[in-house]
Amino acid sequence: MNVQYLKKMLEEVQKGKVSIAEALQKLKTLPFEEIGCATIDHHRPLRQGNPETIFGEGKTATQILSIMKKMVEKGNNILVTRMDRGKLPAIRRSFPKCRYDPQSRTLMFLCHPIREIGKGTILVVSAGTSDIPVAQEAIVTARMMGNRVDPLFDVGVAGIHRLMSQKEKLLSAHVIIVVAGMEGALPSVVGGLVDRPVIAVPTSIGYGANLGGITALLGMLNSCASSVCVVNIDNGYGAGYVASLINRL
Amino acid sequence: MNVQYLKKMLEEVQKGKVSIAEALQKLKTLPFEEIGCATIDHHRPLRQGNPETIFGEGKTATQILSIMKKMVEKGNNILVTRMDRGKLPAIRRSFPKCRYDPQSRTLMFLCHPIREIGKGTILVVSAGTSDIPVAQEAIVTARMMGNRVDPLFDVGVAGIHRLMSQKEKLLSAHVIIVVAGMEGALPSVVGGLVDRPVIAVPTSIGYGANLGGITALLGMLNSCASSVCVVNIDNGYGAGYVASLINRL
Amino acid sequence: MNVQYLKKMLEEVQKGKVSIAEALQKLKTLPFEEIGCATIDHHRPLRQGNPETIFGEGKTATQILSIMKKMVEKGNNILVTRMDRGKLPAIRRSFPKCRYDPQSRTLMFLCHPIREIGKGTILVVSAGTSDIPVAQEAIVTARMMGNRVDPLFDVGVAGIHRLMSQKEKLLSAHVIIVVAGMEGALPSVVGGLVDRPVIAVPTSIGYGANLGGITALLGMLNSCASSVCVVNIDNGYGAGYVASLINRL
Amino acid sequence: MNVQYLKKMLEEVQKGKVSIAEALQKLKTLPFEEIGCATIDHHRPLRQGNPETIFGEGKTATQILSIMKKMVEKGNNILVTRMDRGKLPAIRRSFPKCRYDPQSRTLMFLCHPIREIGKGTILVVSAGTSDIPVAQEAIVTARMMGNRVDPLFDVGVAGIHRLMSQKEKLLSAHVIIVVAGMEGALPSVVGGLVDRPVIAVPTSIGYGANLGGITALLGMLNSCASSVCVVNIDNGYGAGYVASLINRL
Amino acid sequence: MNVQYLKKMLEEVQKGKVSIAEALQKLKTLPFEEIGCATIDHHRPLRQGNPETIFGEGKTATQILSIMKKMVEKGNNILVTRMDRGKLPAIRRSFPKCRYDPQSRTLMFLCHPIREIGKGTILVVSAGTSDIPVAQEAIVTARMMGNRVDPLFDVGVAGIHRLMSQKEKLLSAHVIIVVAGMEGALPSVVGGLVDRPVIAVPTSIGYGANLGGITALLGMLNSCASSVCVVNIDNGYGAGYVASLINRL
Amino acid sequence: MNVQYLKKMLEEVQKGKVSIAEALQKLKTLPFEEIGCATIDHHRPLRQGNPETIFGEGKTATQILSIMKKMVEKGNNILVTRMDRGKLPAIRRSFPKCRYDPQSRTLMFLCHPIREIGKGTILVVSAGTSDIPVAQEAIVTARMMGNRVDPLFDVGVAGIHRLMSQKEKLLSAHVIIVVAGMEGALPSVVGGLVDRPVIAVPTSIGYGANLGGITALLGMLNSCASSVCVVNIDNGYGAGYVASLINRL
Amino acid sequence: MNVQYLKKMLEEVQKGKVSIAEALQKLKTLPFEEIGCATIDHHRPLRQGNPETIFGEGKTATQILSIMKKMVEKGNNILVTRMDRGKLPAIRRSFPKCRYDPQSRTLMFLCHPIREIGKGTILVVSAGTSDIPVAQEAIVTARMMGNRVDPLFDVGVAGIHRLMSQKEKLLSAHVIIVVAGMEGALPSVVGGLVDRPVIAVPTSIGYGANLGGITALLGMLNSCASSVCVVNIDNGYGAGYVASLINRL
Amino acid sequence: MNVQYLKKMLEEVQKGKVSIAEALQKLKTLPFEEIGCATIDHHRPLRQGNPETIFGEGKTATQILSIMKKMVEKGNNILVTRMDRGKLPAIRRSFPKCRYDPQSRTLMFLCHPIREIGKGTILVVSAGTSDIPVAQEAIVTARMMGNRVDPLFDVGVAGIHRLMSQKEKLLSAHVIIVVAGMEGALPSVVGGLVDRPVIAVPTSIGYGANLGGITALLGMLNSCASSVCVVNIDNGYGAGYVASLINRL
Repeated sequence: MNVQYLKKMLEEVQKGKVSIAEALQKLKTLPFEEIGCATIDHHRPLRQGNPETIFGEGKTATQILSIMKKMVEKGNNILVTRMDRGKLPAIRRSFPKCRYDPQSRTLMFLCHPIREIGKGTILVVSAGTSDIPVAQEAIVTARMMGNRVDPLFDVGVAGIHRLMSQKEKLLSAHVIIVVAGMEGALPSVVGGLVDRPVIAVPTSIGYGANLGGITALLGMLNSCASSVCVVNIDNGYGAGYVASLINRL
Repeated sequence: MNVQYLKKMLEEVQKGKVSIAEALQKLKTLPFEEIGCATIDHHRPLRQGNPETIFGEGKTATQILSIMKKMVEKGNNILVTRMDRGKLPAIRRSFPKCRYDPQSRTLMFLCHPIREIGKGTILVVSAGTSDIPVAQEAIVTARMMGNRVDPLFDVGVAGIHRLMSQKEKLLSAHVIIVVAGMEGALPSVVGGLVDRPVIAVPTSIGYGANLGGITALLGMLNSCASSVCVVNIDNGYGAGYVASLINRL
Repeated sequence: MNVQYLKKMLEEVQKGKVSIAEALQKLKTLPFEEIGCATIDHHRPLRQGNPETIFGEGKTATQILSIMKKMVEKGNNILVTRMDRGKLPAIRRSFPKCRYDPQSRTLMFLCHPIREIGKGTILVVSAGTSDIPVAQEAIVTARMMGNRVDPLFDVGVAGIHRLMSQKEKLLSAHVIIVVAGMEGALPSVVGGLVDRPVIAVPTSIGYGANLGGITALLGMLNSCASSVCVVNIDNGYGAGYVASLINRL
Repeated sequence: MNVQYLKKMLEEVQKGKVSIAEALQKLKTLPFEEIGCATIDHHRPLRQGNPETIFGEGKTATQILSIMKKMVEKGNNILVTRMDRGKLPAIRRSFPKCRYDPQSRTLMFLCHPIREIGKGTILVVSAGTSDIPVAQEAIVTARMMGNRVDPLFDVGVAGIHRLMSQKEKLLSAHVIIVVAGMEGALPSVVGGLVDRPVIAVPTSIGYGANLGGITALLGMLNSCASSVCVVNIDNGYGAGYVASLINRL
Repeated sequence: MNVQYLKKMLEEVQKGKVSIAEALQKLKTLPFEEIGCATIDHHRPLRQGNPETIFGEGKTATQILSIMKKMVEKGNNILVTRMDRGKLPAIRRSFPKCRYDPQSRTLMFLCHPIREIGKGTILVVSAGTSDIPVAQEAIVTARMMGNRVDPLFDVGVAGIHRLMSQKEKLLSAHVIIVVAGMEGALPSVVGGLVDRPVIAVPTSIGYGANLGGITALLGMLNSCASSVCVVNIDNGYGAGYVASLINRL
Repeated sequence: MNVQYLKKMLEEVQKGKVSIAEALQKLKTLPFEEIGCATIDHHRPLRQGNPETIFGEGKTATQILSIMKKMVEKGNNILVTRMDRGKLPAIRRSFPKCRYDPQSRTLMFLCHPIREIGKGTILVVSAGTSDIPVAQEAIVTARMMGNRVDPLFDVGVAGIHRLMSQKEKLLSAHVIIVVAGMEGALPSVVGGLVDRPVIAVPTSIGYGANLGGITALLGMLNSCASSVCVVNIDNGYGAGYVASLINRL
Repeated sequence: MNVQYLKKMLEEVQKGKVSIAEALQKLKTLPFEEIGCATIDHHRPLRQGNPETIFGEGKTATQILSIMKKMVEKGNNILVTRMDRGKLPAIRRSFPKCRYDPQSRTLMFLCHPIREIGKGTILVVSAGTSDIPVAQEAIVTARMMGNRVDPLFDVGVAGIHRLMSQKEKLLSAHVIIVVAGMEGALPSVVGGLVDRPVIAVPTSIGYGANLGGITALLGMLNSCASSVCVVNIDNGYGAGYVASLINRL
Repeated sequence: MNVQYLKKMLEEVQKGKVSIAEALQKLKTLPFEEIGCATIDHHRPLRQGNPETIFGEGKTATQILSIMKKMVEKGNNILVTRMDRGKLPAIRRSFPKCRYDPQSRTLMFLCHPIREIGKGTILVVSAGTSDIPVAQEAIVTARMMGNRVDPLFDVGVAGIHRLMSQKEKLLSAHVIIVVAGMEGALPSVVGGLVDRPVIAVPTSIGYGANLGGITALLGMLNSCASSVCVVNIDNGYGAGYVASLINRL
């Protein structure tokens, strides 16, 4: 389109219909992205079948609904994260086919089937039962983005044998997401067992000196395993997102 | 220049010397800022006679010298901040006319006289004698950027009458920079006396629970005077810079 | 007035109606600001048509009402910030013409039309939709203080082209307020594009390691753009206030 | 062993081998505590007519009542701090003569009239209206402990003239309690005006980077006035208590 | 003096030698403190024989010397705190009678004998041997300000009997300064034993999670003894100063 | 059991019923702990009559019930910590013989009598009445793990004589748990009196600069008594657990 | 090998040469990893031609040398990070062919040519010139691990056009490492431009409220771009390592 | 008064009016400490052959020597911790038989052979080679206090098999000290493998967000293994001390 516009203008310059001064003026005041830069894909989340995502926290059901309605017109799949169950009935009235996962508090609405584009399996490991909601958010996200995802829950470091007995799963994964609260030690142990990229997600699970997840976060950033990188506290969505990008390479 | 380039290309299109396809290709691959966007001035620090600035900390005399030599070719005035005196002799050998201010540890080299473009006076107020180096950095910066600058030193809140007795200076300033360490209370008092923009600069002066300036910084951010905004700890340069921008309006 | 008072007293001294001892006594016991210092305007918020401002948080509707009633007697415009909607009906009963903005939770009551005294336009830029309430508080404040204000919302750094395409607005503003949560990167980018004073307002928007806005605050204080100065977290009012002072210069 | 030692000594006293003076001397020099410690008054809060104090936060009305009933038997005055109004009716049923101050959330029950033992006046200065509850807690405490107390409210540093015009009160006080939130600058200014002990009380008033009162606390600890010492955030009771001890000297 | 000035001016007004306009002008431009307010003693540190104090840290011997020379002209005693021994020879050359205390790194120069004005004894208690320099700074300060001061060193809480065996000293003191690092528990214990004002000084002594004295500071602020108030980390001078003010009441 | 399994397999190999390849395969795929490592007891909490423990916070009554039902099948005693009273009725319907302690919010269900295996007495000391819930959690835990436990409550350092008068209890204990909020000084004093392992438990009791228990935690970590080690804030369960392990040695 | 051992043992059981009791005993006491688990590759850093890495900080030249000598026997390439130049001569005496990069302070010794195993290009973007040492450490690491690496330096957000003009490089990279200090905003902008995994490395560059890199770290963790994950401050090595793992998938 | 009381009692004993048993009983029941307190051993560190300990940091060789000389008179063994090697020659001149361990920077001087009083073995586990100095300090301390001590070094969680292969050592220990820096995860893993008291020692090893050991400290306090308790950062001495107390029970 922009190219068309430019082409047309150049033709008019060529034909003398537009003066050089006029053409110059137009070029100068063109909005940035309309020239050439279109090769930089700004519509980032929509490429390759990624879902459009709505951060549900702090939004009313009405607000979520109105955003969903605009999105659905573009034909994209929709993922709502951090949505309380209480908002579900209102949304279901307009989107009866949406699916809600109460553990991760995510809502999915599919305009088209999810196309599997991940190359390997993403393994989502979590330490304690309380970490599952965050792990589940990562799983839902990665699945919406076209990946095979395997859960491996409740394998915290205080019972290291539980993790050890699952070595097949660990060894066969392409990318590993590790979700842990409290001291956040699990990514170090996993990172020491397999040489795959490990996305560590600290959770706010714990009490007292866990500082709302800061302790787990700091622990993961200081991991003695070099294969660990870290996302924000409770950020299951981000972990699922970046793991999906890695799994497409 | 870019305009020249574009104009020439359009003329060649007009004359048929360059095909539309070729012109299109060139437009597409031009580095971003060469089209239209030139109205956004990227050469930010060089506009309106601003000095080019080198952050001297962590740079050797040799490194500073080599940057200065490149800059001087463009004909701009040069300001080096946070430069230890030890580096002066080496620089003086190449720039014998440079001036060094040991208090603020700044070095100035003028390619052309400073043009005064500030509309009013910038008043630089400081609390204790130990805050003077930071205040002085703000003064040098603002002067290099074309402002009349007035110092008002040693008027900390523990002797409030010293500040009070200078009401003329306070009332006649256009913009006020307030530099203070310890509890950082001075900007609140100044902000309560005159209705001018107050740029507060916390310093790392103090000990113990001053936390290297964090205490003064927090105090200033929580000022009960609404006219106060804050820059980083010991950032005299930044305060001088933003005050200069304000003083040009 | 004070001048009148002093003049009258001096005349009476001159005429012998008041003894020197009496005059001396009066001068000694005059409240500070009644002598000479009247040139220092203590009634700060009331100058130049500034609204009187009530910080609504933690005050009951009754308390707000009683303060408003006292203020309205002086004939000033009134701005109530951080007022929950629930308090509106009670206030409306006494002030039926007040206007309430639910987004910024501000209430305005005009005793006289706002006189436009700002010289240029204040641009209020915000990163995400969740930052709008704080941005809106800045807008309302600046408008009440007599400025033309332009909003530019939802131009966060993760989609930098949205900001880029608005270069006209950025270039034509006199002062720019930038409101952002999460990593607080937007002021740096804006400060890199235009050479105007940038008032950065961190918001508490985000989760986990955003630390209730501390992360955005620290980011803004460490901005690599020298034109940035910072106010307290969520302090839209302060940003609007200081921008107004700048815009009057 | 010691028993053996003592027994042996007593036997020698009995047998006349050791004189009473000698025995006394030995008993006196026995590792510390052995003798006479009763002269150290452990029943600290009850000396000199101090009220017995109950920290009401987190206690039910029933719990407070049962403690009050035990205390009243000893004939002491009683002060309950941080008691929500909701608990008042239950307590009033048993103690109809108790007095409740809703601002400071304190309850007083007098078994005997308060004996005035303070030597001078304690002045309680506060910055903003939101700081009054804490200031009031200090006032009630100091009055219960037998002091004349003067309030001086709403004299924050952003309007320094309000403080200045009250110089008589400042100069005539024996001890000064200064209560302030936000940047906590008021104690520095007061400490700079008069050479009396200043007890600074930071309050949790403010938002954002006030960090729940930590900012005011840090500011006060770093006061440039040497006459300032500090108690915990919102600790009006502690300030009243220590000021009372000082005022008795 | 000011009164004289005012009186003279009023007389001239009375006599018609000075016009009302002239008188008015003079009154307006008088520095604040010259009218009436002179009853507020701004020359704070110089009252009642207090020493003039120089904070020696970060000042060269030359700078200290030049300040001392100015001070000595006014005839006041001089106290230099935090002065490294290395600066002593240079100062001794000009002030051969100065006394230097290497433990507290304080230098004293007496223009006149110290007049004893404290009413009781100030007891300075310290926990460990490493806390002695800070304790010693408090002692020197309090002595320079005219007090009898008693040291009680090395009575940390891990050997509580050492403190207990000194009950006489504790009970006979007027004001108690308690200096402690590490967990900072000593002021609570002292405050529990005697009902006197306790000035707590946290020191930076310790390692690891002592956080440069923050741990001791926090501990003291949260003391369960209500008689404790706190000064900045390592601020022996401040403790001595405020204790002196208290001891004069 | 595993040994039985291995023995049987080896016998079948010996008898030729199972081929070496088959046996090899089985050995390879056995979950880690089933071979040899059974000597490492992974079923950690179930050894020696330890109760199975459920962390009740954030779990619904239904969730707790379903876990309890699974546990009770194994015949182990059950301890639920941090369980709100509101969940009790639902649980009592299925487990009418369970006992609930409202102070510590713990629920116990005994499948078999507790076997006493602790060697000495565990003394649980607490500072203030508000610390009792945490102390009580430690007591319940240690009793469930087979120990004689003695409480010693309300002996905070501000009334050191209360602690002193209980020296018999202190001296006769095998292990001492010390629970304290505010400044957390009690473990240091206890650790200075007796040479036994002291497990310090900071509580979140206090306000302002107690930072939700961080102050007490830091104080305990910096204890000047070398016999002190520390668990997480409010972690009465952990203290009871580790004290039990020590008391079995 | 272990399989061989097990097989042999089973054969001997089959043949009756080893009793079941003996076999059982051997199985029980086998070190963990000798059974089955050998498929978990513990020799992690040595797989696939990864270099062996020595963290040079805090090690003497002699210590580094002795580790290198052991490593070189295994025939692996060696990477020493954070090694000061002063240690180079000593190491060069034994390893004359080692290469030292003064910017990143890394030393490389190749036993065999680096085998290129990365699939795409790793782009290493840095904000300021002071960030280059950390960026360079990432580059050296990634090259040693068999990747094509492209640098893109000095493209900080305050001059966003510099980054924009390099869109080709950004778009063609497989994985992007972004190194930035101060406010750490660059990863958000890069993550908004291209949909590739972004490894963000905060640096300790800056002053005052940059808190030694914590500000940049927090900013990156709160990035509004979902493709960003973070490693420790100044951890160029870790970023290079995890990017290499991703680039092999 | 007490003296009177005592005198009177002694007179009655002398006169035979009061029997020795009666007198003894009275002395025993005197307010606390009065009698018999000698049974509370205040001379804590000297019991049972414990060494006297000198914290060497910040003390000159001369100071250490003079303390050692006083101590040696009592015939106790001496342990100096945190003593730089540079001080060794001076001390060796007076104590030629002292032994210095350069790794842990400890100096030992034995007046008598160490009596072994520990019941089991203390195992000291450390994560990385950089943690060894702290681990070694724990070992030296525990040996000086009469324990068999076993080291188990370099078994960090990133190579979990190294720890696993040492299960015999883990299982046979009585008490386990675990020393780790960075993320501090090792105590959790050890605590999950064996049911023994685990004393965790965080070290300051690491960089960036390790915050000088705070990260490891927080991780250990939040350990998911209930058998873990924690001492201060780098506090090998404290860990060795408390482990010794436990091992004597």
